[in-house]
Amino acid sequence: MRFAIFAALLGSAIPAPVFADEVSDYVTGEADELVSLYKHLHQNPELSGQEVETAARMAAELRDAGFDVTEGVGGTGVVGVIENGTGPVVMLRADMDGLPVTEETDLPYASTKTVTLENGSPAGVMHACGHDVHMTSWVGAARYLAANRDEWSGTLVMIAQPAEETGHGARAMLNDGLYERFPRPDHAVALHDSASMPAGTLGMASGYAMANVDSVDIIVKGSGGHGAYPHTTKDPIVLASRIVGALQTLVSRETDPQEAAVVTVGAFNAGTKHNIIPDTAHLQLTVRSYTDERREALLSGIQRVARGEAISAGIEEENWPEVTWDEIYTPALFNTEEQTSVLMSTFADRFGEDRVVALDPVMGGEDFARYHRADRDVESTLFWLGAVDRDVYEAAGGDGTGLPSLHSAKFAPDPLPTLTMGTEAMIGAALRLFAAD
Amino acid sequence: MRFAIFAALLGSAIPAPVFADEVSDYVTGEADELVSLYKHLHQNPELSGQEVETAARMAAELRDAGFDVTEGVGGTGVVGVIENGTGPVVMLRADMDGLPVTEETDLPYASTKTVTLENGSPAGVMHACGHDVHMTSWVGAARYLAANRDEWSGTLVMIAQPAEETGHGARAMLNDGLYERFPRPDHAVALHDSASMPAGTLGMASGYAMANVDSVDIIVKGSGGHGAYPHTTKDPIVLASRIVGALQTLVSRETDPQEAAVVTVGAFNAGTKHNIIPDTAHLQLTVRSYTDERREALLSGIQRVARGEAISAGIEEENWPEVTWDEIYTPALFNTEEQTSVLMSTFADRFGEDRVVALDPVMGGEDFARYHRADRDVESTLFWLGAVDRDVYEAAGGDGTGLPSLHSAKFAPDPLPTLTMGTEAMIGAALRLFAAD
Amino acid sequence: MRFAIFAALLGSAIPAPVFADEVSDYVTGEADELVSLYKHLHQNPELSGQEVETAARMAAELRDAGFDVTEGVGGTGVVGVIENGTGPVVMLRADMDGLPVTEETDLPYASTKTVTLENGSPAGVMHACGHDVHMTSWVGAARYLAANRDEWSGTLVMIAQPAEETGHGARAMLNDGLYERFPRPDHAVALHDSASMPAGTLGMASGYAMANVDSVDIIVKGSGGHGAYPHTTKDPIVLASRIVGALQTLVSRETDPQEAAVVTVGAFNAGTKHNIIPDTAHLQLTVRSYTDERREALLSGIQRVARGEAISAGIEEENWPEVTWDEIYTPALFNTEEQTSVLMSTFADRFGEDRVVALDPVMGGEDFARYHRADRDVESTLFWLGAVDRDVYEAAGGDGTGLPSLHSAKFAPDPLPTLTMGTEAMIGAALRLFAAD
Amino acid sequence: MRFAIFAALLGSAIPAPVFADEVSDYVTGEADELVSLYKHLHQNPELSGQEVETAARMAAELRDAGFDVTEGVGGTGVVGVIENGTGPVVMLRADMDGLPVTEETDLPYASTKTVTLENGSPAGVMHACGHDVHMTSWVGAARYLAANRDEWSGTLVMIAQPAEETGHGARAMLNDGLYERFPRPDHAVALHDSASMPAGTLGMASGYAMANVDSVDIIVKGSGGHGAYPHTTKDPIVLASRIVGALQTLVSRETDPQEAAVVTVGAFNAGTKHNIIPDTAHLQLTVRSYTDERREALLSGIQRVARGEAISAGIEEENWPEVTWDEIYTPALFNTEEQTSVLMSTFADRFGEDRVVALDPVMGGEDFARYHRADRDVESTLFWLGAVDRDVYEAAGGDGTGLPSLHSAKFAPDPLPTLTMGTEAMIGAALRLFAAD
Repeated sequence: MRFAIFAALLGSAIPAPVFADEVSDYVTGEADELVSLYKHLHQNPELSGQEVETAARMAAELRDAGFDVTEGVGGTGVVGVIENGTGPVVMLRADMDGLPVTEETDLPYASTKTVTLENGSPAGVMHACGHDVHMTSWVGAARYLAANRDEWSGTLVMIAQPAEETGHGARAMLNDGLYERFPRPDHAVALHDSASMPAGTLGMASGYAMANVDSVDIIVKGSGGHGAYPHTTKDPIVLASRIVGALQTLVSRETDPQEAAVVTVGAFNAGTKHNIIPDTAHLQLTVRSYTDERREALLSGIQRVARGEAISAGIEEENWPEVTWDEIYTPALFNTEEQTSVLMSTFADRFGEDRVVALDPVMGGEDFARYHRADRDVESTLFWLGAVDRDVYEAAGGDGTGLPSLHSAKFAPDPLPTLTMGTEAMIGAALRLFAAD
Repeated sequence: MRFAIFAALLGSAIPAPVFADEVSDYVTGEADELVSLYKHLHQNPELSGQEVETAARMAAELRDAGFDVTEGVGGTGVVGVIENGTGPVVMLRADMDGLPVTEETDLPYASTKTVTLENGSPAGVMHACGHDVHMTSWVGAARYLAANRDEWSGTLVMIAQPAEETGHGARAMLNDGLYERFPRPDHAVALHDSASMPAGTLGMASGYAMANVDSVDIIVKGSGGHGAYPHTTKDPIVLASRIVGALQTLVSRETDPQEAAVVTVGAFNAGTKHNIIPDTAHLQLTVRSYTDERREALLSGIQRVARGEAISAGIEEENWPEVTWDEIYTPALFNTEEQTSVLMSTFADRFGEDRVVALDPVMGGEDFARYHRADRDVESTLFWLGAVDRDVYEAAGGDGTGLPSLHSAKFAPDPLPTLTMGTEAMIGAALRLFAAD
Repeated sequence: MRFAIFAALLGSAIPAPVFADEVSDYVTGEADELVSLYKHLHQNPELSGQEVETAARMAAELRDAGFDVTEGVGGTGVVGVIENGTGPVVMLRADMDGLPVTEETDLPYASTKTVTLENGSPAGVMHACGHDVHMTSWVGAARYLAANRDEWSGTLVMIAQPAEETGHGARAMLNDGLYERFPRPDHAVALHDSASMPAGTLGMASGYAMANVDSVDIIVKGSGGHGAYPHTTKDPIVLASRIVGALQTLVSRETDPQEAAVVTVGAFNAGTKHNIIPDTAHLQLTVRSYTDERREALLSGIQRVARGEAISAGIEEENWPEVTWDEIYTPALFNTEEQTSVLMSTFADRFGEDRVVALDPVMGGEDFARYHRADRDVESTLFWLGAVDRDVYEAAGGDGTGLPSLHSAKFAPDPLPTLTMGTEAMIGAALRLFAAD
Repeated sequence: MRFAIFAALLGSAIPAPVFADEVSDYVTGEADELVSLYKHLHQNPELSGQEVETAARMAAELRDAGFDVTEGVGGTGVVGVIENGTGPVVMLRADMDGLPVTEETDLPYASTKTVTLENGSPAGVMHACGHDVHMTSWVGAARYLAANRDEWSGTLVMIAQPAEETGHGARAMLNDGLYERFPRPDHAVALHDSASMPAGTLGMASGYAMANVDSVDIIVKGSGGHGAYPHTTKDPIVLASRIVGALQTLVSRETDPQEAAVVTVGAFNAGTKHNIIPDTAHLQLTVRSYTDERREALLSGIQRVARGEAISAGIEEENWPEVTWDEIYTPALFNTEEQTSVLMSTFADRFGEDRVVALDPVMGGEDFARYHRADRDVESTLFWLGAVDRDVYEAAGGDGTGLPSLHSAKFAPDPLPTLTMGTEAMIGAALRLFAAD
């Protein structure tokens, strides 16, 4: 909605479309092939860090298209490079991992793959987050750009990243020298399919688009005993309950109302019997923020609240709550503003304003965020790609709700319109960014 | 009820009555005189620490009866002594002060006295706690015991104490040498009128009978500001509310369920405007307990809770809550068990078991407690004296509820039966304790 | 910051400047006169609803300039109209009321006016919110636009509104037929001085710019009694403290993290004595939101929380908390997006991008909001006008903090640069909006 | 301590000892036999409701001694009767069941028995609550009383009860006609070994001696969802935490400080993942009280709090928390005062005051309580029997702490002094009660 206004104002100022009917024709021509690749990937999902077959396929695709390919970057990561004269370095990224979800669609190409999890239990594997869509669009773009080097000038870096779901893949590729061993990108672009937008549409948010995602554990220590004699104990359940209550104020009182932040206690587990006060309570939190400052304020606030409530409850220092989190968290995704505006205009101009939506940020997370964080000079944009069958979308009310969400066992993108839009948008973004400098 | 059983068991074991019909006859003969004295005292109440006329009258009464009298002990306190051969030292105590209450009874002898309070406002003065009853019974006992020295052997110490209501009088008399300048008592006895027992009855609790009474103030410091920008403030109202919540656990979790304790926040005042977060909140608490250990646990618990919650809320150390209380508190009243049992048996034997009730302890306070605390060898008992007109008592339901309480502007003891019972019980207690050793 | 990017992109697309050097020259020429008018208004502030002299002066100014003037609209409101050919109807608004604040500046033209408040106490009166700045700029614009009718075509409506501070003035003028008796505006513009931006700058937020402001009172009813006997009472302080705690979740759990909302308890008053549990507690809240839906969710949430906690505490239905608010609240100010973008571009082009700032919304309130709410077809923008002396601004750190705020007794706009910018911006906004259609 | 005083007063009033050296001689003579029986029972424990071998042995013992025996009363319960002339009916009770505890003592006669629990897992079985002590003392008393009918007159009813640990046994025997099919007792007596008193001592509390024990479950229902979008959920963890907090006030504010009550949340389980808000939370409580009124107030208070907090949190009526408890709870044990005083005096006289202790009530539970509750005319007393080896007791500090508790795998009564005292006390109690009427 906001976009409509900007676009109206921008009006005549937008440069001539940088990608044209050739692209569209190409994508139309490749459509069957892309759908076929998609179905293959969909039926052969691999879990995070185990993307061996998938990575091999991505590498083969790049090699076939003419890229200079390196495998095994940050585990199973794949990097393909084409140097094509002077100009900016543009990096396009796909992620490769599936999820331990047993598919519940009735699709003829539904995944039937199963694995045994670390804890010994069996599970299905499914591309329930649509990374198969990402890869297929990315392969389509790689083929076109490799085949049409006269349309652009600069260096194209295609990366297929492992382990997005666990938040480790981008970090692993960066740590393995992505920006040192290969041309450092000026522009980085990724897409993510959307389970609440109809196929054939795109969307993006400028600035912070997705959140810092932290998982925090609090081990609240008391001193257990018989439930009939509370005075001989230090009750960790009452204490942990007070911590849950006090945590609310980190958002309600301590965060600027204009700033988004979430502190959710997703699990509270303590004790097993009515009449035995346990020794400990275990809280599991998810914490969301956009800026580093807010993230640090929330995390230190959680620590402070846990400690203060323990002091209030008379817990000795050696038993103050253990508050821990992993520094390998998923950082907030920042869509750099200038590049994002350029892509927004480009897409609106190419696909029509009614198919391109300016979105609010969401509080989910994506480790594509790390490519910009690793080097703030890398402009970056992740945009959303509508994936929902139009009829399904309308039947559910037409507002994006009431549909199977990402990670759902019933998530089922509509392949043709999703993949053609995804591929064309990826190609278009790259062409526009090569042209921009 | 419990007493009935003990008495039944005790049966024949109770020694022969130590006070007899002479006492009863005497009291009956003096009844008009006692009622007259009572009405005089009732019409001339004086506030705590200002008992000048009252003390003079008490001193005159003792002197007339033949006591060796000292005035001005601990302010307006009066001490009278009769040494009468070998035997124990028995101390009988009355308290003298009235209250700043404007009497609302229709009694012909209602107090019409007024004073100007320290804060400049006018107030009535009334013996709304019945200290006039205490003094009259005490005078009656003094007269009898002085006149009938052949019935007892030992030393009798009569004290008229100032400032019971403020909790300062007993302390002041002790600090002024009550146990050094005068014979140190082996036994100390006082009575207190009851606004929920019918005239003609007595009651007592053994062991802890009344509570430690502490007034605690908590100044909760935050950092104020505009209500629309909570993140620029440290909200003392949310913090103080959390303190109120956490204080509940001092009783619910930290005190033995078998042990009585109260932590009440009687006042919570912070802020004056909807949209301004204030800098501070002020909590006023009353704290009740019986033992020194529990008192200390509650007070230090309050301090700990206030501090812990402030830490939880991110308050810096220099702004941690100020938690204060007065060490001149009213300590718990302990009726020493052996003496109290002896008096209970004595009264039951003399007045009949149906007029003598074993009571549970209450959480009110009385500074008579200090006489035993100052020297644990002083056995002590404070017993309750029913003061309610029988018809009024029955009309209100006969269970002691629905009646004007102590400190009420409508409290109106039934003089004759109250005073005769009070006087006879005081005489009887003294005679029994002189005989005990 | 965001604006800088948009402006960069917009670049050549911005239409030719619609107001030019003539305006600037005029304002420079009128500067002394405007400062003089400002000082006069500053020294003669009148409280909300009592703007008699001020309104008379505004009416006289409009009449002198050639407007068709109506007085007494919605109390002391003034409306001036010039019909000048075909074209849009543009409404410029100033507000007239001062505040009961005793000025503490050392300015030679400081207000020395005093009044007696309704409660009988004396108070100073001061234009502590800068409505004198608003009126002066508005008069300057009225004069120019009336004198230069060749530069624009359409209908100009100038309104001087009473009682902004109490939230009643805009409503009163609308209720008195502002949109029926006078030409209904297509565009409405107002400015507000800023106590945190340097003189010579402008700022604005698009969309929701200021908040719904509600004052809510909660009377929490319990049943008082002696602090030593909590079980005979229903403690309203513990209950109200729980309500304060539960209210936090209206923001922390029930509001979309992306949406701004505030629920502040600014006052909590209950009880006066340590040992008496009171009958009631009184909470005073300020509640801020942007949308109607959020406002209603918060208000009904407050009601629901108060009731639920009372039920939890065992309060009978007849004593459930009384939760009240005034439906004459200050609604959220919505700067309609297209007009606001147009004005932003216009100002940036005219004054330079470094003097025009895209601002985030704030949670304060302004009843200018009502003009758009009364008719959603009225596009409207309220923009901020920097008023702080440049040297003072820099000395305070240059980030807009550490300065006397609006409503402060020390608020002192720097007249010359503030008034010239304010006047020029008002003229420019009108010219641009007349030209837009 | 309290007892010492009563005893001193009672002094000469106590009737001549009703049991004498014959009893003591008998017990000494039987000691080896009793210890042998004890070891047999200790090595052959059976779980609640499965006391087949044990019941057979008890029945055989009674039959051998000359009782008229009925088996299978209320499951495996055994009843033996001797009618011996006119006089009161005295009932002595033992309980027979062991616990699913794997013994960890090093005793040569430690239990090595194992069973498979209902859930399929293996477990040891142990008389970890000392019911073997109870049975042995009871058998010793049965033998003596049957053999010495000249020493008493009346009817003796000996019952061996199943399933005390699960709270079902007493109820089952009563429901199976204990008071209809057999002589209804005037007096009922049981003993319970104490893991904190030295062997050779006895103790008892008058009036309420053990508590009502209720287990309450609360299923708190919310509406789960993604942790990053709390506004799309109704968070049951925050709600359940608030319930835990509010429950504290049932004790701290709603219960008379003089009255013992406990509300403990022993388990709080909700959710399994950091970032998923669950649908429900499960609280498990133990609730302790003495009177029926307090029990009902606490249970209905829990229901009220759960509901009120749910309303506060915006939960619809159909999802209000499910609060459940079992009406087959263990009711409070009431030691009727007159009989208990009589037994206390009797024991003090026989064993010496230093071996008989007046105890405070405890908040544990025992279904012996049901015999008095089923008919308030049945006077009843359960007394404690010290079972700790003297040297072990002293080594642990001599205050009864630091020792393996009842139900501990390391609980190890000192057989000889425990069993001789237990047997002699049971015989003495019966003789005294036969003599009393």
